[in-house]
Amino acid sequence: MRDHIIKELKDHDRVSGEQLARKLNISRTAVWKHVKELRRMGYVIESHPRYGYALLKSTDLLVPEEVNFKLNTRVIGSHILHLSEVASTQNIADKMASEGAAEGTCVIAEKQTSGRGRMGRNWASPFKDGVYISVILRPNLKPVHIIQIPLVAGVALVRAIRKTTDLSPGIKWPNDILIEGRKVAGILTEVNCDIDTVHYIVLGMGINVNTRQTALPEEVKDIATSLSQECGREVNRVGFLKQLLSELESVYDEFVTDGFQSIGKQWMQYNNTIGSLVTVNDGQSILEGKAVGIDDDGFLLVQTADGQTQRVISADVSLR
Amino acid sequence: MRDHIIKELKDHDRVSGEQLARKLNISRTAVWKHVKELRRMGYVIESHPRYGYALLKSTDLLVPEEVNFKLNTRVIGSHILHLSEVASTQNIADKMASEGAAEGTCVIAEKQTSGRGRMGRNWASPFKDGVYISVILRPNLKPVHIIQIPLVAGVALVRAIRKTTDLSPGIKWPNDILIEGRKVAGILTEVNCDIDTVHYIVLGMGINVNTRQTALPEEVKDIATSLSQECGREVNRVGFLKQLLSELESVYDEFVTDGFQSIGKQWMQYNNTIGSLVTVNDGQSILEGKAVGIDDDGFLLVQTADGQTQRVISADVSLR
Repeated sequence: MRDHIIKELKDHDRVSGEQLARKLNISRTAVWKHVKELRRMGYVIESHPRYGYALLKSTDLLVPEEVNFKLNTRVIGSHILHLSEVASTQNIADKMASEGAAEGTCVIAEKQTSGRGRMGRNWASPFKDGVYISVILRPNLKPVHIIQIPLVAGVALVRAIRKTTDLSPGIKWPNDILIEGRKVAGILTEVNCDIDTVHYIVLGMGINVNTRQTALPEEVKDIATSLSQECGREVNRVGFLKQLLSELESVYDEFVTDGFQSIGKQWMQYNNTIGSLVTVNDGQSILEGKAVGIDDDGFLLVQTADGQTQRVISADVSLR
Repeated sequence: MRDHIIKELKDHDRVSGEQLARKLNISRTAVWKHVKELRRMGYVIESHPRYGYALLKSTDLLVPEEVNFKLNTRVIGSHILHLSEVASTQNIADKMASEGAAEGTCVIAEKQTSGRGRMGRNWASPFKDGVYISVILRPNLKPVHIIQIPLVAGVALVRAIRKTTDLSPGIKWPNDILIEGRKVAGILTEVNCDIDTVHYIVLGMGINVNTRQTALPEEVKDIATSLSQECGREVNRVGFLKQLLSELESVYDEFVTDGFQSIGKQWMQYNNTIGSLVTVNDGQSILEGKAVGIDDDGFLLVQTADGQTQRVISADVSLR
C-alpha cells in the first residue's frame, strides 16, 4: 500500500487525503497512518489542511520503490528484498536461491549485524552508512572458473565508483577495491555447485559509501576508508546503488556472452597488483614474488626469486 | 522407545511383555503397540503367551539402530537421519549442513521420489532396493580441488563392494562405478564454497544393491545393473552400508591427513578409463582422444590425435 501512496505523491504535486483514500480504497485514517510510517522511513511529506499531502523529499533508504525508479537493468535488481536489519544478506539470498529465486534477485540491508567478509572475516555494516547487497547469479560456469565472478564484480564496482564520484580506485587481486591503499569495498562470492556445474552464486558486495571512520571497528580503522571520506562529500547511496546494478548487468552480460577475456582486460586496466611484490598465504605455506599477470582463467601469476611462475589459487594476497 | 525395546530383545533370548513394560515404564498395551510397529518395520518378533517376546530376525531397513550396531567408524555415520521416503536425501542433508550439522552426518532413505544424479539427471531409487545416502563432509579444501572428493568416494565404494561381494568393479573417471560396463553406483558431489574455501560438501551415493532390472526406468535398463544381479544373490543392504561407511571413513581420513596423492594411486588401480579412447562433452565442445592419466589435482588427462595432452575439467566422459 505504501508504494502506491509514494507513486501517487511522485505523480502529483499535491494529493488530498480524501483523494488518496478514494483511489486506494482505504480510510483517511489509514492514509494518515501510512504517511506517518513513510515519514518514519525518511520520506519528507508535507501535509496541509487545505491542499493535502506533498512529497518534499524522498527517503535515502535503499527501498525497492527508490532503487527501481528509472533503473535501466533487465535482470539485475528485477526482484529486490529490502531489510532494515539482518544478520547477513548472504544467508537470506542463499536460502532464496536454494528455493529457486531468479537470477538478478537482490537482497539489500541498511544494516548487517553479522556481515561476512572473505575467510570468515567480519564486514562492518553500520546502519545507513554503506551499501550491503547480495545478488543471485546463475551463470553457466565450471566450478574451476568461479574465480572469474569476483573479478567481474570488481570491474563493475570500480566503474560505478568512477561514474558517481571523481575517485579512481584500484583492484587488489582478486577483488579488494582500494583507494590510496585503503579498502573501500569488498566482494564475497559464495557458490553452490557440483563438480561439473555451478548451480547458483550469491555475490555479496559491501561498499563503505558514507561510512565515518568512527563507525568502523578499531582493527580496520587504519586500512579501511569510505567514498565520502575520499571525495570529501556525502555520496547519494540510492544513486550509487543504481549505478552499481547497471554496471554489474553490463559487465556480467559481456562475461556471459563473450567469456572472461574482455573482462580480464578491463580488470587489468583497473588493477593495482600486477607489477607489485606480493605475499600469498594459502593457510599452509607462504609464497613471495612478483605478480606478473593473470592467466586466462583469472588466477594470479606470481614469479618467484628462482624465475619460476606459479599460478596462485589462494585469494589471500598482500602487496609488499 | 522402539530402539530401547529392540535393544532389550537383542540382549535377551526372550523378554516378557511385563518385563518390558516395567523396564521401560510404559503399559503392556504400549509395549504391544510398539511391537506391532516394529513388525511393520520388518522386525520378525515372536510373541508367546507364556515365554513372551523373542526377536527372530532384524529388519532389513537401514534404520540407525541397525546401521550403528557395531559400526566401527569415528565420524562418518555418527549422526544418522533415516527416512522411508524423501524427494532427495541431498536436499535434506544440504539444509542440515547449512544449519551447521556436523561432519559425518548421514541422511539415508529407503526410497527417493526425485533422486538426483549428475548434470540434472534422475537417479532411480526404488523402495528398499538400493542404498541412497548423503554424507556431510567439511574438508579443508580449495574449491579448485573438489574433483578429488568423488574420486575419494569412488575408491571407498569399490572397496566396500569388493569386501561384501566377489565383484571387482571399475571406476570410470571421475566416479561412475561400473561392472562389465554397466553402472552399479553413482556419486553426486554438491559443494557450498567461496572462492577460497569449501564450507561443506554433501556427498551423495546411490548404489543399486538388490535392484531388479524391472524396477529400473526404461532408458537406463541397458546401461545399469545391481550388485545382486551381478553376483547372483541377494546382498544384505545393512552389511553393505556399514562396510561403505567404514571404507569411506578410512579413505577420507587418509585423504585429509596425507592429501590426494595416495588416494590417486588407489583410484588408478581401480579405474577402467586410463588407456581407453574417450569422448569428452563439456556442453559446448567435444574432445576425442586417449585417456592417459590423471594429474596431481585429479583431473583427467587426454591425449588428442595431434599428440597434445589436455586437462579435462568436464566430467561428462564416455568410453569408446
